[in-house]
Amino acid sequence: MWKLEVENGIESVFAKWNFQPQLLMGAGPSNCSPRTTNALTMEILSPVALDMYKIMDDIQCMLKHTFQTKNRLTLAIQSSGHGALESILTNLVNPGEKIIVAVGGVWGKRTVAIAQNYGIEVITLSCTPGEIYNFKDLEKQIMKHKPVLLFITHGESSAGTCQPLDGLGKICHKYNCLLAVDAVASFGGVPLFIDKWEIDAVAAGSQKAISAPPGMAFLSFSERAEQLMRAKKVPPPFYFDVIALGETWNCFGNPRKYHYTYGSHLLMSVREALMQLIEEGVLETWKRHEVCAKRLWNGLEQIGLELFVEKEENRLFTVASVIVPKDVKWPVLLDYISGKHHIDISFGLGPTAHTCIRVGSMGYNATYEKVDTVLKALEDGLKYCRSENGQNGPNSRSEVME
Amino acid sequence: MWKLEVENGIESVFAKWNFQPQLLMGAGPSNCSPRTTNALTMEILSPVALDMYKIMDDIQCMLKHTFQTKNRLTLAIQSSGHGALESILTNLVNPGEKIIVAVGGVWGKRTVAIAQNYGIEVITLSCTPGEIYNFKDLEKQIMKHKPVLLFITHGESSAGTCQPLDGLGKICHKYNCLLAVDAVASFGGVPLFIDKWEIDAVAAGSQKAISAPPGMAFLSFSERAEQLMRAKKVPPPFYFDVIALGETWNCFGNPRKYHYTYGSHLLMSVREALMQLIEEGVLETWKRHEVCAKRLWNGLEQIGLELFVEKEENRLFTVASVIVPKDVKWPVLLDYISGKHHIDISFGLGPTAHTCIRVGSMGYNATYEKVDTVLKALEDGLKYCRSENGQNGPNSRSEVME
Repeated sequence: MWKLEVENGIESVFAKWNFQPQLLMGAGPSNCSPRTTNALTMEILSPVALDMYKIMDDIQCMLKHTFQTKNRLTLAIQSSGHGALESILTNLVNPGEKIIVAVGGVWGKRTVAIAQNYGIEVITLSCTPGEIYNFKDLEKQIMKHKPVLLFITHGESSAGTCQPLDGLGKICHKYNCLLAVDAVASFGGVPLFIDKWEIDAVAAGSQKAISAPPGMAFLSFSERAEQLMRAKKVPPPFYFDVIALGETWNCFGNPRKYHYTYGSHLLMSVREALMQLIEEGVLETWKRHEVCAKRLWNGLEQIGLELFVEKEENRLFTVASVIVPKDVKWPVLLDYISGKHHIDISFGLGPTAHTCIRVGSMGYNATYEKVDTVLKALEDGLKYCRSENGQNGPNSRSEVME
Repeated sequence: MWKLEVENGIESVFAKWNFQPQLLMGAGPSNCSPRTTNALTMEILSPVALDMYKIMDDIQCMLKHTFQTKNRLTLAIQSSGHGALESILTNLVNPGEKIIVAVGGVWGKRTVAIAQNYGIEVITLSCTPGEIYNFKDLEKQIMKHKPVLLFITHGESSAGTCQPLDGLGKICHKYNCLLAVDAVASFGGVPLFIDKWEIDAVAAGSQKAISAPPGMAFLSFSERAEQLMRAKKVPPPFYFDVIALGETWNCFGNPRKYHYTYGSHLLMSVREALMQLIEEGVLETWKRHEVCAKRLWNGLEQIGLELFVEKEENRLFTVASVIVPKDVKWPVLLDYISGKHHIDISFGLGPTAHTCIRVGSMGYNATYEKVDTVLKALEDGLKYCRSENGQNGPNSRSEVME
């Protein structure tokens, strides 16, 4: 007979818990639509079931459409967006090879950290916080350093910037350099044309403008990138082996091969989220994000707040970085809005750490109604912060990444 | 104005689809209970929300209890079980260092492949298919090769074997060798005592005997393993950086640090699944798996089927490997049972490839009723396979891993 040896205090787990759902108007994740949520409840499937393959085929087909690409190597992986960045780096670049990372905030910095972990030689570029890179400067750097790859963030949600990309692929290819793009915070909410813009590798996430739950990332690789991948000497992590995963996703017309077990519930939910995007239309979805963002920016200015990104054309539709007035403590503001209005807004990170909050309107939450709701809550929150009660409280939080 | 450039044929996605749920009586995943499924539908949380931390604390607390450990470095990661194996290897072993992998089937082989990917020197042991390792042989190998780590599979679901572990940790530690265990297919369904058995690193999965959806893996490391991890020279993959993830899980009493975004829906579902296990009792859950397994084994023999693992004491409670009679084509059998009875049974892999099917009873599906249901379906399926119609059809499938 077995006997338990370790007794941990598990009573706290079973204590009463008042879970309070929040409207997620921060830098992501966003809330799921009822359809997307409901799709999670489908009975779990075996990873080798025919219905599983149908779900994967559907997702792949819709990803290609939404990415605007004919890339055969287009798939979803079971990881956060970070895993997708790591996949791109480890499948395309050998240790000792040189890449340029054009950093615009914490996500660019993370790309640098991941690459350096693998002994990749990284040339790190930086730009004025809240601004973007111009192609002439990037071309000069490519000419100077002759990297195998330029990595750039499309929607840098820590700054609130959107980097133009149209034409950058052509420049890279003049110098035999690949273009890799982190589109985690932009995909689905901002125009993005993988083929037309000659992007060789792109990473996107499930939980931002697609409004599926977190835990899945999307990848697409050009033929040029696939060739490099197949010639790569040092193998990628097993979990991020894109060629092996491409076989699971039937990218190469071979028989499918099992690599690891995907959760069918999340695939089903991602499928449902993409279907809603396609039903609305890709162009129409981008437009909705644009008009909601503009309503948000105007509304923020009307309640006396200033946007961190000065030039409107550099602003990201999905996430706005908003300067916190000097007489307001941001942790007090966010806690008040979360507690009173049940709305989640994000604190600043990297270039906006300690000075900004970040207000998002993405995916299912990109509607005029929700934009107006968050604006009203902010107005009320500012009033509270300027009251006697609101002057007390902390000035920072330990989670802030600089 | 933007214009779509690529038009993929997305009509197939929207065509009518008759999704047929299946009772999963194969090698995993298993079906979720209604409570576990329902927990998936909770509103998504920000990764830095206080409610998120509460869910993580609860999971950690219940994992410690279920693992029977006081290890502070106990956590869940957002990946399949393979990711957990890769995490153990890359956080504990440097390239060039020597480990022993005691292979009992395809999962042991995968561990070898992952380790070799990183330039780890692997001594690969093998045993007679369907049998287990005895400690004297293992001790001899440890004495001979002086590895830093012995990796062994607890429940080798491709063979249907369960490797005894009580006492193995003590042997390893005599030779300054760590013991790492793949418990993906056993955790929750088979007795396992991390502390008492002196296991230094363990990997488990969400979708087997815990009956949560796939996509989350569980890890626990001893103090000895944590020390080795902190002294390791070559960094692990960013996504599998256990020390950084340990900071997210508040393992070290530091302020929590964000590493990547977990899906709160899956954490919530895993929490709910573990709560049900704790409510039933860890010992009681193991016992239920044992009695269901024995009912299944007896029932299989009664309908004329033979088990691949001869000795009862070597059999895994969660998955039984069953020899396919010579006059039966296994793909026909599995397709018939799936189509007619809506029950999913697994084909053989590795040591059981082409010769066996694998019948599971785990987690929510480990009940007498479901065992009897799968037995009846098998009886009917065998009859069909021996009929004229059942003699036609393929002898194999491309997905089988050898």
